[in-house]
Amino acid sequence: MKLQFGMVGGGNGAFIGNVHRKGAQMDDLAELTAGCFSRNMEKNRETAEAWNVKDPSRVYSSWKEMADREAQKENGIDFVVIVTPTNTHYEIAKYYLEAGFHVVCDKPIALTAKEGTELKHIAEKNDLLFGVTYTYASYAVIRQAREMIEAGKIGQILKIEAEYPQDWVLKDAALNPDASSVWRLDPKQAGPSACCADIGTHLEALIKQMTGLHPKRVLARLNHIKGSILEHDLDAFLEFENQIPGHIWASQVAAGNDCGVKIRVFGDQGSLEWAHQRQMELRYSPLTQPTQILLANNLYNYDACREQCRLPVGHPEGFHEAFGNIYRGYCLHLLEKKTGESAGDFRYPTIDDGIAGLRFVDACLKSDAGGNIWVEVE
Amino acid sequence: MKLQFGMVGGGNGAFIGNVHRKGAQMDDLAELTAGCFSRNMEKNRETAEAWNVKDPSRVYSSWKEMADREAQKENGIDFVVIVTPTNTHYEIAKYYLEAGFHVVCDKPIALTAKEGTELKHIAEKNDLLFGVTYTYASYAVIRQAREMIEAGKIGQILKIEAEYPQDWVLKDAALNPDASSVWRLDPKQAGPSACCADIGTHLEALIKQMTGLHPKRVLARLNHIKGSILEHDLDAFLEFENQIPGHIWASQVAAGNDCGVKIRVFGDQGSLEWAHQRQMELRYSPLTQPTQILLANNLYNYDACREQCRLPVGHPEGFHEAFGNIYRGYCLHLLEKKTGESAGDFRYPTIDDGIAGLRFVDACLKSDAGGNIWVEVE
Amino acid sequence: MKLQFGMVGGGNGAFIGNVHRKGAQMDDLAELTAGCFSRNMEKNRETAEAWNVKDPSRVYSSWKEMADREAQKENGIDFVVIVTPTNTHYEIAKYYLEAGFHVVCDKPIALTAKEGTELKHIAEKNDLLFGVTYTYASYAVIRQAREMIEAGKIGQILKIEAEYPQDWVLKDAALNPDASSVWRLDPKQAGPSACCADIGTHLEALIKQMTGLHPKRVLARLNHIKGSILEHDLDAFLEFENQIPGHIWASQVAAGNDCGVKIRVFGDQGSLEWAHQRQMELRYSPLTQPTQILLANNLYNYDACREQCRLPVGHPEGFHEAFGNIYRGYCLHLLEKKTGESAGDFRYPTIDDGIAGLRFVDACLKSDAGGNIWVEVE
Amino acid sequence: MKLQFGMVGGGNGAFIGNVHRKGAQMDDLAELTAGCFSRNMEKNRETAEAWNVKDPSRVYSSWKEMADREAQKENGIDFVVIVTPTNTHYEIAKYYLEAGFHVVCDKPIALTAKEGTELKHIAEKNDLLFGVTYTYASYAVIRQAREMIEAGKIGQILKIEAEYPQDWVLKDAALNPDASSVWRLDPKQAGPSACCADIGTHLEALIKQMTGLHPKRVLARLNHIKGSILEHDLDAFLEFENQIPGHIWASQVAAGNDCGVKIRVFGDQGSLEWAHQRQMELRYSPLTQPTQILLANNLYNYDACREQCRLPVGHPEGFHEAFGNIYRGYCLHLLEKKTGESAGDFRYPTIDDGIAGLRFVDACLKSDAGGNIWVEVE
Repeated sequence: MKLQFGMVGGGNGAFIGNVHRKGAQMDDLAELTAGCFSRNMEKNRETAEAWNVKDPSRVYSSWKEMADREAQKENGIDFVVIVTPTNTHYEIAKYYLEAGFHVVCDKPIALTAKEGTELKHIAEKNDLLFGVTYTYASYAVIRQAREMIEAGKIGQILKIEAEYPQDWVLKDAALNPDASSVWRLDPKQAGPSACCADIGTHLEALIKQMTGLHPKRVLARLNHIKGSILEHDLDAFLEFENQIPGHIWASQVAAGNDCGVKIRVFGDQGSLEWAHQRQMELRYSPLTQPTQILLANNLYNYDACREQCRLPVGHPEGFHEAFGNIYRGYCLHLLEKKTGESAGDFRYPTIDDGIAGLRFVDACLKSDAGGNIWVEVE
Repeated sequence: MKLQFGMVGGGNGAFIGNVHRKGAQMDDLAELTAGCFSRNMEKNRETAEAWNVKDPSRVYSSWKEMADREAQKENGIDFVVIVTPTNTHYEIAKYYLEAGFHVVCDKPIALTAKEGTELKHIAEKNDLLFGVTYTYASYAVIRQAREMIEAGKIGQILKIEAEYPQDWVLKDAALNPDASSVWRLDPKQAGPSACCADIGTHLEALIKQMTGLHPKRVLARLNHIKGSILEHDLDAFLEFENQIPGHIWASQVAAGNDCGVKIRVFGDQGSLEWAHQRQMELRYSPLTQPTQILLANNLYNYDACREQCRLPVGHPEGFHEAFGNIYRGYCLHLLEKKTGESAGDFRYPTIDDGIAGLRFVDACLKSDAGGNIWVEVE
Repeated sequence: MKLQFGMVGGGNGAFIGNVHRKGAQMDDLAELTAGCFSRNMEKNRETAEAWNVKDPSRVYSSWKEMADREAQKENGIDFVVIVTPTNTHYEIAKYYLEAGFHVVCDKPIALTAKEGTELKHIAEKNDLLFGVTYTYASYAVIRQAREMIEAGKIGQILKIEAEYPQDWVLKDAALNPDASSVWRLDPKQAGPSACCADIGTHLEALIKQMTGLHPKRVLARLNHIKGSILEHDLDAFLEFENQIPGHIWASQVAAGNDCGVKIRVFGDQGSLEWAHQRQMELRYSPLTQPTQILLANNLYNYDACREQCRLPVGHPEGFHEAFGNIYRGYCLHLLEKKTGESAGDFRYPTIDDGIAGLRFVDACLKSDAGGNIWVEVE
Repeated sequence: MKLQFGMVGGGNGAFIGNVHRKGAQMDDLAELTAGCFSRNMEKNRETAEAWNVKDPSRVYSSWKEMADREAQKENGIDFVVIVTPTNTHYEIAKYYLEAGFHVVCDKPIALTAKEGTELKHIAEKNDLLFGVTYTYASYAVIRQAREMIEAGKIGQILKIEAEYPQDWVLKDAALNPDASSVWRLDPKQAGPSACCADIGTHLEALIKQMTGLHPKRVLARLNHIKGSILEHDLDAFLEFENQIPGHIWASQVAAGNDCGVKIRVFGDQGSLEWAHQRQMELRYSPLTQPTQILLANNLYNYDACREQCRLPVGHPEGFHEAFGNIYRGYCLHLLEKKTGESAGDFRYPTIDDGIAGLRFVDACLKSDAGGNIWVEVE
């Protein structure tokens, strides 16, 4: 049995729509059969053709029409993938949930935690799945790390350090000096947060996937480079349950970094380290013993990690496959739901993670506005 | 316009068939529309369903039938992908070429250089494309390296060093001690070469793609571990045009290595280094200046490199995408052929590279048999 | 002309006394000719013999005696090296300064900034040099980084990130479970700070040497692992002149790390990165260009860097040589002072850096005690 | 008890004399008390003063005089260190051995294996120690590797791969284009081999120290870049006892490399890897398990490794300390000899290793001259 899905957005040249499509289809658990890829009908049709949506009648001119018409079909789509601009996520997701569709939505799922919570309630009421695409949290070795932590390999967690440096804001300004500089973006359009909402949330989700912990309190400092209204650099102290301390750093102005996500979890019996630049590797340092380099698709890993690998050991898998892991988990869950048969072991970021991200941003903004004070993540 | 292709083999659980399919479809230039995936008709149909071959009448019970029937169709497949065991490549490829189909074949393309050359002549006579899937040679930064060499960035080439260590033969023996040990395989079944044919050829092709050079002469030493009949480790001195020296090492018994391909090209003005473990990176050392780390999808690279990247800088692409690059080049060439319009800049390994690989293996075996003597690569 | 120096402490088996001796003598600018290495006269004499103090009359039973007697000599020591426990530094340094000797003192130079300032005033009044041995700040490439920053290679500094993870507190507890656990040390003996005073100060000094910047304000969080009285992990937000933001992390409970000092300085035109694990390398990322790896003793570096290298490029120098660089600078300064002739270009950490470290610790403790509030570094 | 030594050569600005002095004195087992550092008496005295040779009467105007006069002293030097140009080693070493002095000599110890063997016989006849300074073989972790191999950690050795790329010949030509190019050096002055004698021998010695194996047979290929008479690049197949195969590559024209020594030893149960660029690390890959990174001075290492470390874990030691390890072993041996008391566990390269290096060069030259044929290493 293969699931069907539709897509809203994705057809305007941005790379991320195609990444969703490839991820969703990667393990042949689902197939793109409908879409409203663009408001420009020509682009819409071109995208449909390129992406093998065979039935022209399922290429819709509006996302509402797709929801309405697919809902009426006997054999319509099972879930919808929403890859439109952030400020439209809430409206679209709500409509599809109310129409009875399972949803996968790009992050952030909404503009506020309040909206996110509302979506969650609708999904729960209608017994629908809601997946959120936190990619870095979904590399196969992150699951290995989680299993190791749960098995006690590093003992009690003492400290978490995570970082996500990029430099695109600087690069963009350097390469397009005449364009309206990105860091002076109007917050009315961009929302109240740049760096924290865009990439700080990835770190929050990554910590959660790797350790199971969400921060209870934050003390954040938003750094505004060169007088920009929005922040492009962020440090935050975190406090998890049992007063476990943590710290994250995210930056869009860290020259020489592209997607430099890194996380280190320190326990009283050892530590684990993962860096996106070597995405297949997990470094494990058992206290008093040599550091070990675990490779994602090696036999010594837990099944839950290896099941997310598609190639023999030594063959690199990358960002597309991390996306695939999200959709793999989501589709297995949905298939289990539809068939009643166990689909095995799977995890993927859900609306709870999406809401947690929104709350995290809120708390960071409040902390900074208050002069870098401790704020509860509600 | 989207090309159609069929596949012979690939449906028996081996990962490589799926890698071909994903590679061929990656950039939406081609679509799998026919296949004879297995002689087991149930597996054949399951594979077809999983892989979205919609028309059941195009799932064939024999590869000959597929060739015959698709040839008769007005809108049949444009090319065939052959992923069967090596000893069947020649027969199948020949049949398809004679039926007028373009071909992509897994390496090695045949058992002997003679067979390969015959295939080449048929392809040329019928004006057909013949692609060969040398993956490591097809990572995006290899193209960057080639462009840099052609632009004189490292000056005159002085030396080439390449290596490909694996350890699967040892691992397999350790994990399956009761199984008939792989390294005592009967050469009657496996052919006259293990390590050289399987992975030595990858190095030969990688050198060619990166530098444009094929070895003229070799002096090879085949190492037979623990009395196995076939070699599982190989060192070879190479000599290229203008007496440029080179050396390769390939091994299937190098504990701690999985797919550790690495190449270093040294010129009188600088050097280039690529290692599969960091597949997105190219190291460039201009003489007397600091070593530079070039990332595949960064803006400072040549267009010919960047066109083979599908994600923004910092997002890793891996083995699947390297396969995608081969098929991208092949499909662009085929589309150019069919439409008469230029499809831009592309390169991919062809039957010439396939034949060169076979000749290389022959020369290595002859050199070793002769007591490690210099042998011309004919 | 070769300087003479005496040493107070160092003879009781701790490695650091010997490191000072080797550092001070490394470039043949100074010679150990007197000492009071231990209150145990046998150890004192043994150390003197091992360390080539030839004249038995200059092996003193008390440091006061050494000061008094060497001061009376026509050809007595030029400077004294103080490597006793921290709580004795102030008294000894004061005595020697008042006796007219130049001083090198291990860090921290005193228990309070007030004491440090008093020492500074005495040194200034008597026109004496006071060096402080911040080692990590003294690797040759740190000087290269400083020169590059001053030359504008990374533009305006936007952010500084530095870290120093160790794991010895955990390791010690694991290997010596019955010993009184180090992290429950009595602050009455150890002073009010563990991690911040011991290694946080190294980061403060490293930032200063690399960028010229001292923090103006700090917001610190001291993490007390497992109920220990003293902190063993520290995060601090820093603010430098022109509101430049920074962050440091120091930890003594970060399993898998030994001496993992790392600093990254981000500017609007590029960044610089140095990590102690690869002490000879400086990573330079010019914005929009490939990252470069500069090696300490290569010809392309500034003279001020290369002068601190003693071996041809490719030969690693380590911790001993970093100590040597401090003493090289100190001795060149002292020789210049004594001879009136320019001794070239040199820098080394002085009492100002020592005082800055003490003030930094005070500010961090105050910030944490106040509930993680911003505190001026006075 | 502290040994006394004299030095012949070293005072003419070349760095290596000072490296010997520092190495010999590093662990306070020996002291430089005599020397004939230069034929230029002014340089000779300056060097003596800088290097703390206190007694002017022991600064000699000829090395013969030093031998004669020190031999007559009741309390003369125990050993001599010879750091003169290679073509003088034999004559000087012979004279000192015949005068009854223990010897340490820079490599190569002579121009021919015949000369080396003669020196060995004199040393044996007179019961004298003869140390040879193969530095790369003397890093602390190489001893760790040796102990691990002897303990069976990697099982039976299957293959050895070692390399030593440099680029100074190219760099020198680029930076000094008008100078007589080094690679066209007259072999009458330089001897019959450049790359093989200078750095190939280091690989031979490194393999020996790490594994205990000397090659029995070689098949070498000397590469002459750009028409130079002497070779500047070398590949050689090696055969050790039990037909164990090996390969080395050495080059002086490998742009981007400085002192890039690397060795990998592959066994049927695991492998070990060491690279000079990360001189404190040993990589250990137990078959089917994750690769481990061992740090030289960590507690989990064998005592024989840790005894060669002088600093706590995490503090890098480099080239000077590797030299120190040679002298430490040599001095401990000499002290044991003089006192009759066991000095513990030590190893250092001896005249046997020096002779082995000369025989290795002879065999490589013979192999290449014969058209790359197998030649016994006699």
